[in-house]
Amino acid sequence: MSQRLEGNVVVTGSNRGIGLELVKQLAEGTGEETHIYAGCRAPEGTGAEALRDIQTQYPGKITIIKLDMSDEDSISAAVQEVNKQIEAGGLNLLINNAAINQPGPLAPLSATGKKDMMDVYETNVVGPFLIAKMFLPLLKRAAEMSSPAKDMEEENMSCRRSAIINISTVISSIHKCPETFAQVQMYPYRVSKAALNMLTRCQSLDFKRHNILVTAIHPGWVRTEMGGSEAVLSTKDSVLGMLTIMSSLGNKDSGMLVDWQGNTIPW
Amino acid sequence: MSQRLEGNVVVTGSNRGIGLELVKQLAEGTGEETHIYAGCRAPEGTGAEALRDIQTQYPGKITIIKLDMSDEDSISAAVQEVNKQIEAGGLNLLINNAAINQPGPLAPLSATGKKDMMDVYETNVVGPFLIAKMFLPLLKRAAEMSSPAKDMEEENMSCRRSAIINISTVISSIHKCPETFAQVQMYPYRVSKAALNMLTRCQSLDFKRHNILVTAIHPGWVRTEMGGSEAVLSTKDSVLGMLTIMSSLGNKDSGMLVDWQGNTIPW
Ligand SMILES: NC(=O)c1ccc[n+]([C@@H]2O[C@H](COP(=O)([O-])OP(=O)(O)OC[C@H]3O[C@@H](n4cnc5c(N)ncnc54)[C@H](OP(=O)(O)O)[C@@H]3O)[C@@H](O)[C@H]2O)c1
Ligand SMILES: NC(=O)c1ccc[n+]([C@@H]2O[C@H](COP(=O)([O-])OP(=O)(O)OC[C@H]3O[C@@H](n4cnc5c(N)ncnc54)[C@H](OP(=O)(O)O)[C@@H]3O)[C@@H](O)[C@H]2O)c1
Repeated sequence: MSQRLEGNVVVTGSNRGIGLELVKQLAEGTGEETHIYAGCRAPEGTGAEALRDIQTQYPGKITIIKLDMSDEDSISAAVQEVNKQIEAGGLNLLINNAAINQPGPLAPLSATGKKDMMDVYETNVVGPFLIAKMFLPLLKRAAEMSSPAKDMEEENMSCRRSAIINISTVISSIHKCPETFAQVQMYPYRVSKAALNMLTRCQSLDFKRHNILVTAIHPGWVRTEMGGSEAVLSTKDSVLGMLTIMSSLGNKDSGMLVDWQGNTIPW
Repeated sequence: MSQRLEGNVVVTGSNRGIGLELVKQLAEGTGEETHIYAGCRAPEGTGAEALRDIQTQYPGKITIIKLDMSDEDSISAAVQEVNKQIEAGGLNLLINNAAINQPGPLAPLSATGKKDMMDVYETNVVGPFLIAKMFLPLLKRAAEMSSPAKDMEEENMSCRRSAIINISTVISSIHKCPETFAQVQMYPYRVSKAALNMLTRCQSLDFKRHNILVTAIHPGWVRTEMGGSEAVLSTKDSVLGMLTIMSSLGNKDSGMLVDWQGNTIPW
């Protein structure tokens, strides 16, 4: 039984690609009770024009927040800003979408250096680690504020109540690595996303006592700067699928990796 | 059918714990044709006394190499030194054993910061990534020098020929995380070792064409500084088990995670 998402939502890396479409569809498909905090590295830059347009289209519904996931101080400042605006409310949904893929999808091992490995890990894993840790009080508060009815206690976690969604990828699957490695090596990215899956699993176990759901989602292969023009899915279809799945996630999905259609992907 | 290990072997983090015991048993159990390059951060320090003692016990068999896995220049210098000494030979076995666990096994999320996440990844994942990349020419040469007999072509990879062993842990298993998370959180370490497993899998696929075997091994829970005094295994028994397993690893084990008794661990 899926209900539409609502409440306070944070999306990282929201100025283009999948993140931008997440903000758009969340703004479109939710009611007054929803507010979207759209994280982005350069809110005033030309790269955020499309995001500012969506903000104008839905007055009062979207706050654009300056947020660089590779910079601890920036994360801390963004969390404080959200905190201030949410006042006594909680954070219902944190979507860790921002990510990088260096030195590029087709770069062979020989072109991949220490800086690539460290930078990709910093943005794709340590950023999500830090922001979840800093938002934990707000996520806990959201969970406390919406305690389910007594007869719902067994299915007590959801993206409507309190959740972290880490955007992962099928490329993160160690098991499935042989299916794709010959086409795309991407050492730093693959390794970082496998690490993100472990982070997801740890968080799900850690935050269960607070009734916070934590799930990793693979958006499919999507036409964005990262996915490239040959990808099979539009951002629209990928995000439509992911939001449908998110709104139906429950206890059994916490600590799992699922795709935009709800299929479980093995580690 | 297992044959004892031989040839040129590199062990990282060899001045104490499991690494030290690896050097000891390799020196003890191999013949004249074997040379061990024992990597260690501070070869002259008091922390390398036990290693220097073993070196004295087996004259001409062990070269102690200054090697800090968190420092790219140090890795590069160590590889050059081994290269020089091996001359026209190849490297048969690289054992990535060095690792750290910050901020400690019982440190909760609240005590874990960005520096812990980055430092542990640097030593446990990026170090093994870089050293394998830099040793690749020597590993390839070893594989080329010992091409198997025609009737052995289907089982053409082994630790005697050319191999990378990444010392992982059962704690790296995303699948098994719920079994241990309540006892030990270790976010930075868990996440880094899951990443190391993905690295292992990528390397196994990448280096297969060169006939280089790549396998991750869990040493068991071992009494060392990292494992603590309550651990169930002595370094002696763990290393005895791991060397037996290593000497029997073949094609089907490349890209897998196995324990010191040869059991496969799920990702
Ligand atoms: N596209 C696919 O086929 C595909 C497949 C599987 C998984 N994914 C995952 O889906 C997510 C979105 O990917 P996408 O295809 O939309 O990628 P994209 O088009 O490259 O967009 C990436 C977004 O992340 C932002 N970003 C990068 N580094 C950042 C940082 N340090 N701080 C804040 N924001 C940062 C970018 O902002 P700037 O404009 O400032 O650079 C941009 O908004 C990622 O997690 C990706 O791994 C994508
Ligand atoms: N003990 C266990 O129960 C257990 C269980 C599962 C897996 N493991 C794995 O087994 C391996 C060995 O663990 P252990 O128990 O022997 O640990 P340990 O007793 O803590 O020894 C770690 C070794 O790694 C070295 N090292 C650390 N950072 C280094 C760096 N940057 N460069 C070079 N060397 C570095 C240390 O050298 P210094 O003296 O210079 O610090 C030391 O020689 C590790 O990969 C560990 O994750 C251990």
